Amino acid sequence: MFFASDNSGPALPEVLNALAKANTGYAMGYGADAEMAEVTRLIRALFEAPEAAVYLVATGTTANSLALATLCQPWETIFCSDVAHIHKDECNAPEFYTGGAKLTLATPKDADKLTVESLQAAIAAEGTRGVHGPQRGPVSITQVTEYGTIYTLNELQALCDVARSFDCPVHLDGARFANAMVALGCTPADMTWKAGVDAVSFGGTKNGCMGVEAVIFFDPRHAQEFELRRKRGGHLFSKHRYLSAQMLGYLENDLWIDAATKANTNAAQLAEGLCQIDGATFLHPPQANMLFVTLPRATHQRLFDAGASYHLWDGPLEGDPDEKITARLVCDWSLSKEQIDQFLDVAAG
Amino acid sequence: MFFASDNSGPALPEVLNALAKANTGYAMGYGADAEMAEVTRLIRALFEAPEAAVYLVATGTTANSLALATLCQPWETIFCSDVAHIHKDECNAPEFYTGGAKLTLATPKDADKLTVESLQAAIAAEGTRGVHGPQRGPVSITQVTEYGTIYTLNELQALCDVARSFDCPVHLDGARFANAMVALGCTPADMTWKAGVDAVSFGGTKNGCMGVEAVIFFDPRHAQEFELRRKRGGHLFSKHRYLSAQMLGYLENDLWIDAATKANTNAAQLAEGLCQIDGATFLHPPQANMLFVTLPRATHQRLFDAGASYHLWDGPLEGDPDEKITARLVCDWSLSKEQIDQFLDVAAG
Amino acid sequence: MFFASDNSGPALPEVLNALAKANTGYAMGYGADAEMAEVTRLIRALFEAPEAAVYLVATGTTANSLALATLCQPWETIFCSDVAHIHKDECNAPEFYTGGAKLTLATPKDADKLTVESLQAAIAAEGTRGVHGPQRGPVSITQVTEYGTIYTLNELQALCDVARSFDCPVHLDGARFANAMVALGCTPADMTWKAGVDAVSFGGTKNGCMGVEAVIFFDPRHAQEFELRRKRGGHLFSKHRYLSAQMLGYLENDLWIDAATKANTNAAQLAEGLCQIDGATFLHPPQANMLFVTLPRATHQRLFDAGASYHLWDGPLEGDPDEKITARLVCDWSLSKEQIDQFLDVAAG
Amino acid sequence: MFFASDNSGPALPEVLNALAKANTGYAMGYGADAEMAEVTRLIRALFEAPEAAVYLVATGTTANSLALATLCQPWETIFCSDVAHIHKDECNAPEFYTGGAKLTLATPKDADKLTVESLQAAIAAEGTRGVHGPQRGPVSITQVTEYGTIYTLNELQALCDVARSFDCPVHLDGARFANAMVALGCTPADMTWKAGVDAVSFGGTKNGCMGVEAVIFFDPRHAQEFELRRKRGGHLFSKHRYLSAQMLGYLENDLWIDAATKANTNAAQLAEGLCQIDGATFLHPPQANMLFVTLPRATHQRLFDAGASYHLWDGPLEGDPDEKITARLVCDWSLSKEQIDQFLDVAAG
Repeated sequence: MFFASDNSGPALPEVLNALAKANTGYAMGYGADAEMAEVTRLIRALFEAPEAAVYLVATGTTANSLALATLCQPWETIFCSDVAHIHKDECNAPEFYTGGAKLTLATPKDADKLTVESLQAAIAAEGTRGVHGPQRGPVSITQVTEYGTIYTLNELQALCDVARSFDCPVHLDGARFANAMVALGCTPADMTWKAGVDAVSFGGTKNGCMGVEAVIFFDPRHAQEFELRRKRGGHLFSKHRYLSAQMLGYLENDLWIDAATKANTNAAQLAEGLCQIDGATFLHPPQANMLFVTLPRATHQRLFDAGASYHLWDGPLEGDPDEKITARLVCDWSLSKEQIDQFLDVAAG
Repeated sequence: MFFASDNSGPALPEVLNALAKANTGYAMGYGADAEMAEVTRLIRALFEAPEAAVYLVATGTTANSLALATLCQPWETIFCSDVAHIHKDECNAPEFYTGGAKLTLATPKDADKLTVESLQAAIAAEGTRGVHGPQRGPVSITQVTEYGTIYTLNELQALCDVARSFDCPVHLDGARFANAMVALGCTPADMTWKAGVDAVSFGGTKNGCMGVEAVIFFDPRHAQEFELRRKRGGHLFSKHRYLSAQMLGYLENDLWIDAATKANTNAAQLAEGLCQIDGATFLHPPQANMLFVTLPRATHQRLFDAGASYHLWDGPLEGDPDEKITARLVCDWSLSKEQIDQFLDVAAG
Repeated sequence: MFFASDNSGPALPEVLNALAKANTGYAMGYGADAEMAEVTRLIRALFEAPEAAVYLVATGTTANSLALATLCQPWETIFCSDVAHIHKDECNAPEFYTGGAKLTLATPKDADKLTVESLQAAIAAEGTRGVHGPQRGPVSITQVTEYGTIYTLNELQALCDVARSFDCPVHLDGARFANAMVALGCTPADMTWKAGVDAVSFGGTKNGCMGVEAVIFFDPRHAQEFELRRKRGGHLFSKHRYLSAQMLGYLENDLWIDAATKANTNAAQLAEGLCQIDGATFLHPPQANMLFVTLPRATHQRLFDAGASYHLWDGPLEGDPDEKITARLVCDWSLSKEQIDQFLDVAAG
Repeated sequence: MFFASDNSGPALPEVLNALAKANTGYAMGYGADAEMAEVTRLIRALFEAPEAAVYLVATGTTANSLALATLCQPWETIFCSDVAHIHKDECNAPEFYTGGAKLTLATPKDADKLTVESLQAAIAAEGTRGVHGPQRGPVSITQVTEYGTIYTLNELQALCDVARSFDCPVHLDGARFANAMVALGCTPADMTWKAGVDAVSFGGTKNGCMGVEAVIFFDPRHAQEFELRRKRGGHLFSKHRYLSAQMLGYLENDLWIDAATKANTNAAQLAEGLCQIDGATFLHPPQANMLFVTLPRATHQRLFDAGASYHLWDGPLEGDPDEKITARLVCDWSLSKEQIDQFLDVAAG
């Protein structure tokens, strides 16, 4: 009953097989490996972007920070959600990599998503004081959001239009890119450059790799700067083939889509079951592979006692057992129906 | 005939097996995996340092930069060799991670190593102008050196004594730690804290891992700062078990020592063969797994034509065929006697 | 009718006289001038802080940024008001000088001041995610606030107590230190270390100097780091006596108190007059030398037409002439009663 | 007998008069003052550069660091002399402002100047290792050099040609710009853009101002970035008119040329006198306002005993009284013939 995170489960067997396959003979280092050439070809094809610059790094924080640093000057501010990973969970990595840029929080109060109005207002409020205030920088959109919800293609397009009207580039934090794409039933291009996105952190780690994320720039003029930033950040692997092989295994035969479909299906099954439980409510509508469900403390206590693993979102376990608090439940591809049923059984009491 | 680098060969099969073994069930992320606990236990035991803080990162540049940033203030200067990896091959990563520290080159002209005199003079010359000049910061020693030579334990001790006399901490760049240790026939402790080293980049990648280096601080008070720097640098792996497993496979059953022994033996065999070749000389005495051999251009041409792969050090292939130029030849554990003999045959002409 | 800023008027004649007096013979540079020794003596006496470390820089942004960088690690966040100068008006200087720290906005919605509750909540919400989120850093309090209001001594003490309970140091942005102190009728010590403040930006520029601010640390252990940060920021003046002389002229004979008293009195006279004007209201109660007054657009138009100079706060001049918008009116020591009366006459219509 | 530095003497009376003259009425802040408009006009005319972007800052370290940061990426290296102020005397300010660029020392051993050969070799040696090494960045030339010598116009042109051949921009550290120009008998344009210089730190402080330096970019496309860097560095003065007024007083009526002429003449008189002293030799030929003279320790002792003030360059005062050590003697405009004669009398013994 492991719902703590989609980075806690095992890697997909096919990814490990790809690693083993790559482990033969001598290979050029630092990204000049044959596997990387194939990864680039595949990603360009998938994204219908034959000119795109494609890079691999090992963590999501790195993908986000390097992509943003490439799009952002140190005197600018990045517009993002108040629960964005780049704001809450990267220990100031974007500030570090950009050389001291700021983050401006642009979500409406208690909302899970940026809105056209909130983003428009946030950008308009900056950049009005000459050199005194921070200048307008990139917009960073998280898809799937940190609340497990998904921007529709129309919403994405509208946010990108706002950004474009201020000449702000757009970054998409796609740590759960595949989960969103599967949920929307769209193509990679639909969810990125066709909507107006300039750079993508295309996650592999949470969806079954060991540790690999692609960074994709649709305008290849960003390539050289990114390469230098990657190197001086220590993120250029000498034995790069082991990053490439993971991504290759992940992309081949639609494995990435299958894994995300399983994870989303698992979450849907879990959500459906929770709906049957008396008094359970959702903080935000479940749309991908992550649920925020509100249950009485006593229920959480019962689940933890039974060995379930997940994070409480808005309160400690100690307190009034009848009071309701919210939990975050994340499903990955590896969960079995049995685990989910067991969880629901315990929750039902 | 692949002598280009010790990061071009395959990873040790045992390392991949360890990965596969770790790939079962759910594991806590971010370094809280069971494998990491075992790695820490093993490294503390190997280094006879029960209090040491031990961390894993994926690249040598990261290990060096994070270790140095933890030991160095932005207004200080780091003393190192003029061919140190941190100076020549990290695209200013140490400057980036330290927030703008300087590097002071402290080797005698054309020397492969720092000497007591050169280091003493370099440190003494800094820190004499109050707040105007850079302040004295850490000393970074590379073992095996970038010229393939090795500091004796007495030399290490003497350099650390110089550093200590100025209150400068000492970092050891041990990208080829195992090769040096095997060549010296000493213990990990001998080559580090017993000589006066404060922090070590303990390489795994060049000696048969896919991508993992340990950073070891003998004074655990550096732990918290390092952990925050690692996180904000994007170097904390969510699925950390895949770093741990590599290092575990590498350390268990003395695999790391065996691999380095093979690499050094390969290099010795190659050096011995080269000595028989008319006119071949060594720029620096071969001591570990890396040779700098001087041969006529025509010989290099013949080798390249036969498919050998390695780097020329001090001149282009084009030019007077009789003129001698120097090549860097690196051996890893995976080279076969046949490959070496074939190389020597071609070289002999 | 110049109410645009307290940095637009002339410098106090006594400050220029002090400059001229200092301009004789040779003087040691870089802060070793005799005038600086006297400044240090005076400030320590005024603040009843015989051990305090005292430095001079030329701008408020510098004073704030260097003080905060000395108190803050790059992985921390600074707690401040959402209209703090360090957040809105320094083009990311605190982010730059700290090496990438974050700023967390901790004021209640639409409030002019931090409150115990809002600060407590903001600090408590950070530092709960291990190495993932930013760590808790300094609290920066602006006195006089950017809305012209003043924290009482009790309020200051209570905020510092909150900070102390989380081990967060406290910085006071006292660009208008004298105006606040005069309004409170307290001593420099009351408003700083006795309340729990660790470091002060003690403004001179806005209150009649040409360009000088003191930075005061009550704990002298911060001295060396500050001195190195000042130098590498380019803020250590070679001919330092010209900074010292300004501050000396400013402090001698209570000139700084007289100037602030005049500025506050001017603002009080202006506020009193504005109260008589039909429909004029104050966004925040006038307490020092800065007013936020709400008037119909038509009134502003009349004032601008008559040559008044000041900033509109929340709307453009164009629009419905009857609609009310807010202006910021700042008084310095140099304004005459005639100018104020003239302004009021025009405003009255 | 004050020969310690050209930042120890008083400011020119005309500069103080200009300050007093500017101290009337209200003025726009942050560089929008009328005096600055006049400074820009004058500097553009003097440099025959009607499009140049012109800025004022208060210190030489600031001028150099901001100019270089505008010309340099964080992953580049700056080519300079091994005694350049930016390398030895700015506590890593260039590294700080550039976000972690490196400095490559490019002077021949023991030389006072960069040579075409040494610069060519230094630049050629960088930028050859792809993303691994630092990339080629700006060349910074110091005129007058830190050894008191002067690049001829031909030498400047030749160095700029080398830089240009590698697409490296050129910065001139002109802390003693006027002294060099007077010595060469050339125009400001001759010594800058006509030779190939892109950006100049045009010193005022050492030549009689209180604290002001101009930064001049001949290509105005650098303007916006410089303005943002200046602001976030804390170097944009709110009461900017007091920087402008200094520079205005300095430039008007050729005051700056007169002051430099006096300083150089004083140094020439001092050098001539020293030539008469038995055993006195010059480390480098005296060419501007700074001498490096070698004298027996006993002579230095006699001079210090008589109250002379200057820096010893290469040894402590303690030691063999007959051994010769070198002193740096700097002359400013304010020295009198009497002081120089008195110094020579004591030196003669």
